[in-house]
Amino acid sequence: MIRVAVLGAGRIGQIHAANVAANPLAQLVVVADPFPAAGKPLAEKLKCEYTDSPDAAIARDDVDAVVIGTPSDTHAELMLKAARAGKAVLCEKPVDNDLAKADEAIEELNKLKAKVMMAFNRRFDPSNIELRRAIDAGDIGEVRQVIISSRDPGLPPRDYVKHSGGIFRDMAIHDFDMARFLLGEEPVEVYAKASRVVDKALMEEFDDYDTLMVIMQTASGKQCHINCCREASYGYDQRFEILGSTGMLQNDNLRPSTVRRFNAVETEARPPLLNFFLQRYTDAYRNELDAFLKALTDGTPLPTNPWDGRQALRLAEAAIESVATGRSVKV
Amino acid sequence: MIRVAVLGAGRIGQIHAANVAANPLAQLVVVADPFPAAGKPLAEKLKCEYTDSPDAAIARDDVDAVVIGTPSDTHAELMLKAARAGKAVLCEKPVDNDLAKADEAIEELNKLKAKVMMAFNRRFDPSNIELRRAIDAGDIGEVRQVIISSRDPGLPPRDYVKHSGGIFRDMAIHDFDMARFLLGEEPVEVYAKASRVVDKALMEEFDDYDTLMVIMQTASGKQCHINCCREASYGYDQRFEILGSTGMLQNDNLRPSTVRRFNAVETEARPPLLNFFLQRYTDAYRNELDAFLKALTDGTPLPTNPWDGRQALRLAEAAIESVATGRSVKV
Amino acid sequence: MIRVAVLGAGRIGQIHAANVAANPLAQLVVVADPFPAAGKPLAEKLKCEYTDSPDAAIARDDVDAVVIGTPSDTHAELMLKAARAGKAVLCEKPVDNDLAKADEAIEELNKLKAKVMMAFNRRFDPSNIELRRAIDAGDIGEVRQVIISSRDPGLPPRDYVKHSGGIFRDMAIHDFDMARFLLGEEPVEVYAKASRVVDKALMEEFDDYDTLMVIMQTASGKQCHINCCREASYGYDQRFEILGSTGMLQNDNLRPSTVRRFNAVETEARPPLLNFFLQRYTDAYRNELDAFLKALTDGTPLPTNPWDGRQALRLAEAAIESVATGRSVKV
Amino acid sequence: MIRVAVLGAGRIGQIHAANVAANPLAQLVVVADPFPAAGKPLAEKLKCEYTDSPDAAIARDDVDAVVIGTPSDTHAELMLKAARAGKAVLCEKPVDNDLAKADEAIEELNKLKAKVMMAFNRRFDPSNIELRRAIDAGDIGEVRQVIISSRDPGLPPRDYVKHSGGIFRDMAIHDFDMARFLLGEEPVEVYAKASRVVDKALMEEFDDYDTLMVIMQTASGKQCHINCCREASYGYDQRFEILGSTGMLQNDNLRPSTVRRFNAVETEARPPLLNFFLQRYTDAYRNELDAFLKALTDGTPLPTNPWDGRQALRLAEAAIESVATGRSVKV
Repeated sequence: MIRVAVLGAGRIGQIHAANVAANPLAQLVVVADPFPAAGKPLAEKLKCEYTDSPDAAIARDDVDAVVIGTPSDTHAELMLKAARAGKAVLCEKPVDNDLAKADEAIEELNKLKAKVMMAFNRRFDPSNIELRRAIDAGDIGEVRQVIISSRDPGLPPRDYVKHSGGIFRDMAIHDFDMARFLLGEEPVEVYAKASRVVDKALMEEFDDYDTLMVIMQTASGKQCHINCCREASYGYDQRFEILGSTGMLQNDNLRPSTVRRFNAVETEARPPLLNFFLQRYTDAYRNELDAFLKALTDGTPLPTNPWDGRQALRLAEAAIESVATGRSVKV
Repeated sequence: MIRVAVLGAGRIGQIHAANVAANPLAQLVVVADPFPAAGKPLAEKLKCEYTDSPDAAIARDDVDAVVIGTPSDTHAELMLKAARAGKAVLCEKPVDNDLAKADEAIEELNKLKAKVMMAFNRRFDPSNIELRRAIDAGDIGEVRQVIISSRDPGLPPRDYVKHSGGIFRDMAIHDFDMARFLLGEEPVEVYAKASRVVDKALMEEFDDYDTLMVIMQTASGKQCHINCCREASYGYDQRFEILGSTGMLQNDNLRPSTVRRFNAVETEARPPLLNFFLQRYTDAYRNELDAFLKALTDGTPLPTNPWDGRQALRLAEAAIESVATGRSVKV
Repeated sequence: MIRVAVLGAGRIGQIHAANVAANPLAQLVVVADPFPAAGKPLAEKLKCEYTDSPDAAIARDDVDAVVIGTPSDTHAELMLKAARAGKAVLCEKPVDNDLAKADEAIEELNKLKAKVMMAFNRRFDPSNIELRRAIDAGDIGEVRQVIISSRDPGLPPRDYVKHSGGIFRDMAIHDFDMARFLLGEEPVEVYAKASRVVDKALMEEFDDYDTLMVIMQTASGKQCHINCCREASYGYDQRFEILGSTGMLQNDNLRPSTVRRFNAVETEARPPLLNFFLQRYTDAYRNELDAFLKALTDGTPLPTNPWDGRQALRLAEAAIESVATGRSVKV
Repeated sequence: MIRVAVLGAGRIGQIHAANVAANPLAQLVVVADPFPAAGKPLAEKLKCEYTDSPDAAIARDDVDAVVIGTPSDTHAELMLKAARAGKAVLCEKPVDNDLAKADEAIEELNKLKAKVMMAFNRRFDPSNIELRRAIDAGDIGEVRQVIISSRDPGLPPRDYVKHSGGIFRDMAIHDFDMARFLLGEEPVEVYAKASRVVDKALMEEFDDYDTLMVIMQTASGKQCHINCCREASYGYDQRFEILGSTGMLQNDNLRPSTVRRFNAVETEARPPLLNFFLQRYTDAYRNELDAFLKALTDGTPLPTNPWDGRQALRLAEAAIESVATGRSVKV
C-alpha cells in the first residue's frame, strides 16, 4: 500500500485525490492546499487529513508518494522538495514554464535518482494506449506521418489567458508530448504559425494566439502536424492519425451516448463531444495514477519522466521562436 | 452484339432502355409502348425505332432478346410470347400477381427451355453482391439469422395503392427474394403481422397495410426477419444484416455525398438517404442488365429465373395468409 | 444517507455492493451470502459487515434498503420478507420464474405498498436513457416499429443452461422489458420462433433453444421485433432501433477503444465489442442504483416496479407458448 | 449542341471523350492524338472522327470547344491556339509547369477574352461541391482552419516520377487548388517540409520527395494544412476538414461497397478505398464537363479559369522555395 499526499485541491487535484482514494494500491493520507475552503471539504469527502502546507505534507513520515497538482510555477520547487525527502512524485506538466529553470531542476532530480513521473494524461487514454500498442506491434509498419487535431470547446476566461504562459506552453504542450509519444523519435525541426481568429482583441492584449498549426520533422524524415484552436463549437476535439508504411490508425472522440438520429434533414447524427478534459480523460487520469502506483509497487521504470516534460516544453519554445521569426527552428 | 427490344416506356422501361443503349454487348433496336407519348421521345433520345405494339417488337427478326417493363398483369403473357418466338427475356417481377397463373406460365417456359431472367434488381447492387460473395467465401461461417429492413421514403399515391396488389406482393416481394438470396436455403415456414400506422383510412379502404413484420425459418433452423414500412422520413432505407457462426455482415445505405457536419447540437450528421429506388439502385439496374447480356453472350446460366419470381410470390402469399389467420404458414 | 444490505455476493452482487459503497447517497452496512468464501472477502474489501443469513441482514434495524442479487428462485420470498420488514428493495429480475408465484408475490407487495424496484439494468444505460428521452421529447414523432438485436458473446456453460429456465425467460426477458420501455405501450400479441443452430445437442438435451425471433404488436398497431442468439463471434451485441413517424433512432455498442485501423484489406476496422454484460453495462448498473437511491431520498416513484418484472415474464411465457403452438398468442 | 474536339487519347483524354459522347449538351466531333494506336480505337468506340494532328482538330469549323488532355508542356500552346481560333477550352492542369510561361499565356488569353476553364476535377466532386455549398450557406460560420489529407495509393512508375515536375507541382497542386477553393481567400504565406520515407533512393535520384506537409495562412489569419504521401496502403485517400466558428465539416472517401464486417478480431471493417483518381472522381469528371458545357450554353462565367491554375502553381513554387530555404515564403 503506497501512502499518498495530494498537493493542490483545485480542479485537477480533486481528480487525483479521488483516484488515489479509490485505487486499491494506494492510501490517501493527506490533501494539502493553502486555501482551506478548497482543501478541507475535499479531505472530509475522501476521509483523509488536511493541511494548508504542501511542505508539511511532503515531510510526513507516513507519506511515500506525492501527487502535485498545484500552479505551474510551484512544480519545480515542490518536485525537488519531495525528491530530496525521498518521496516518489507524480507531477502535472510543465516542469516549469521557464526552460532554463526546468533544466536545472531536472539536473538535480537526476542526481537524486528521484522517482518522478510527469502527468501527461493523454498517454494513458485507452485509445491512445491502443494506438501506441498497435504501432509497437508493427500493425502499420514504419510511422511516416502523424496528424494531431486538438481543439478546446471554448475560450478560457480572461484571467486564465493572462496567466497561461500562452497557447503553445499551455495547450499545445500536450500535443507536443503526444507527437513524441506517437512518432517514437525526437523531432529535430519545428515550424509554427499562429493567428487570432477567435478573439483578436483578447489575444492581442496578452500577445497570445487562439489558433495555430505546427509541422515537425524527425532526423529520419517522419513528419508531424499539429493543429489547435481555442474554440470548437461541437466540443473538446482530440484526434490522432498515424500513417504508416503498411497501414493507418485513427482514434475518435468520446460522446455521452452512442445514439444516432435520422430524420428528414440528416442521418446518423451523433451527440456533441464530451465537453472538456476532465470528462474526456476520466479513464486516462485513473490509468495514469494506476501506472504510477504499479510501477512503484513493482519497482519498474516510471512510464514518463521529467525529461519528457522538458522536451515538450522545448518544442513549445521552438514553436514560439518559429512564429516570431517565420523560420523553422532546429531543436 | 445482342439485339434488344424494350417493352414498356414508363419509369422502369426508361432505365432499362438507357442501360441497353449504353451497354457495349447490346444494340437497342426498338422500344414498344402502346402510348406514343411515352415511347416516341424515348426512342428518339436513344436513337432506336418505336412501335406501339409489344407483339410486333417481339416478332422482329432483328431482335434477339426482350426486356419486359410493362404492367404486372401483362408479364406472363409477354414472357410466353417472347419465349415461343425463341427470344431471351429479362422480365420485371412478378411473373404474375396470381400464383396459379404464374405456375402455369413457368410450366410452359420450362417446356420451352426458355432463357428467362427475373429482374430482381437488388441482387445486383454492388453491396449486395459483396454480401453474397462474402457468405460464399465462408467469411462468416454458417448463416444463422438474416435481418432485412426495407422502408419506402413515403406513401405511394392513392391510385398506386389501389392497383399494387398490396404491400406484401408489391413491396415486400423484393425482400422475400433477398431473404432467399441471403439465406441460401428455402424458408419452410412464414409468419407475418401487418398494421396501419401511417395512413389508417387509406389502408382500410383498400384492405391493405402500410407496416409489416415477418419471421421465416428454413428446415435447418436458419431464421429471417423482414420489417417494412411505407414511410421513412429520412429516405429510402434498404439494409441487410447476416449473422453467421464466425462473423456478421451489414450493408449501409447510399447518400448523395459523404459530408459529415459537426456543430453545437450534433456531430457526424450525414445527409438523408437517396430518396428512392431509381436513384438507390442505379448501379444495380446497370449490373443486372449486364449480367443478363453476359450470360447470353457466354452461354452460361442466367443468374435468376422465373422460379425465383414464383418463390418470392409464394412467400408473399403465405405471409398474407398468416396475417389473416394469426398462424405461421408452412410453404 | 440510506443504509443498505446487499444479498448475494456472486457476480451481480459484487457489482451492486461496490456501487453502493461508492455512492454518496448510501452506506453499505452488510453483505449477506450463505457462502462465506464469496461473502467474506467482499465485505472485507468494501469495509462492511458480513453475514451468512439474508434473513438476518434484512432484519437489522440499521438497514433501510435491501439489494437482492441471489438466485432467481429466492427473489419472491426475499422481496416479501424485506417488504414486510418495511425495507425498500432493489431486486434482480425475475420476480419469479413461475408466473403464478410472481403474481401472488406482487399482490402482497401491492397490499404492503412496498417500495420495490426491479433491476432492469438496460433501462439505465446512458444510450438507452437517451433513446427514451428523445422519444418522450417527440424527436421522432409516433413510434411505429422497434427492432431489438440481442446476442450473447458465447454459449453459457452446460450447467447454466440446465438451470436457466430457458432462453426466453433467462435471456430474452431483458429484451421483452426493453420492448415495453421503448414502445411505450403494452404488446397485446406475441409470436415467436426458436431454433437450435449453435449447439443442437445441448439444446435438445434441455429442451431449450439458442436462437430466436419474436414479433409483437400493440393495440394501436406499433410493432416490435426481437432477435436473439446465444453466440456472436464479435462480442456482446445489444442494439435498439426505433422507427417513428418523423425520425429514427439507433444506439451502437461499446468498444474498449475508439481506434480504427486501415490497411490493404480493410478500412475503419474497429475493435470487437465489450465482451459481456458486466463490462457493457458498468455505467447502467451504477445509474440504476443511483436512480433507486435518489427516488428513495426524494420520495419520488421508483422508476420500475414488480409489475414490470411480471409483464416481461408474461411476454416470455407467451413466446414460449407461441413456439409450441405455431400461433401468435394474445396477452 | 456544342461540338467538341478532345485532344489527347491517354488515360484522361479517354475519360473526357466518353463524357463528351454521353453528355446531351455536346457532340463529340473528333479525337486528336499523334499516336493512332491510342486515338483510333477511341474514336471508333465513340463513333467520332480521328486525327493525328491537334492543330487540325482545333482548326475545324465544326468544332466549338476543345478539351485538352495532352502532356503538361503542350497545354499553354494548345490553349492559345484554340483561343485564337475562337474556341472555348477545357484544359487539364497545369497551365504550364513554368510559372513565367504560364503568366505569359494567361496575359494573352485575357487579351483574347478567351473562354478557358481549368480542369480542377476535385472541385466538381459531389461531396466537395457540398462542402463549398455548406460554407457559402453559412452552416459553419467563418472558416478558421482547413485540413487536407491527400495520399496516393502507391508510388508512380520511375518514368512518371522523372517527368512529373516533382511532387509539389504534380500531386500537391490539386491540394493547393482545393485550399483556395475551401478557404475562400488567397493564402499569403506558405511553409513546406518534404521528406523521403517511401523510396529514398528513387527520390534522391530525381531530387524529388514522396512525403510532404504544408502550412499556409491568409491575410485574415485563416490557416490551411496539407499533408501528402505518395503511398497509402489502404487506397487513394482524399479528405477535407473545415473548422468554422460555429461548426465543422468533413468529407469521407469512397469505397466499392457499403459492406461492414464483424468477427472475433474486429468490427465494422469496411473495404479499402477506391484505388485511384479515375475511379474516385468518376462523378467529378462528369460534373466538371457538364459545368463547362452548361456555362457555355447559358453564357454564364466558367467556374474556374487559367488564373486558378496559375495560383495553384504559384503556391506549389512557394512551397518548393520554402523546402529549400527552411523559411516561410510570402506570396
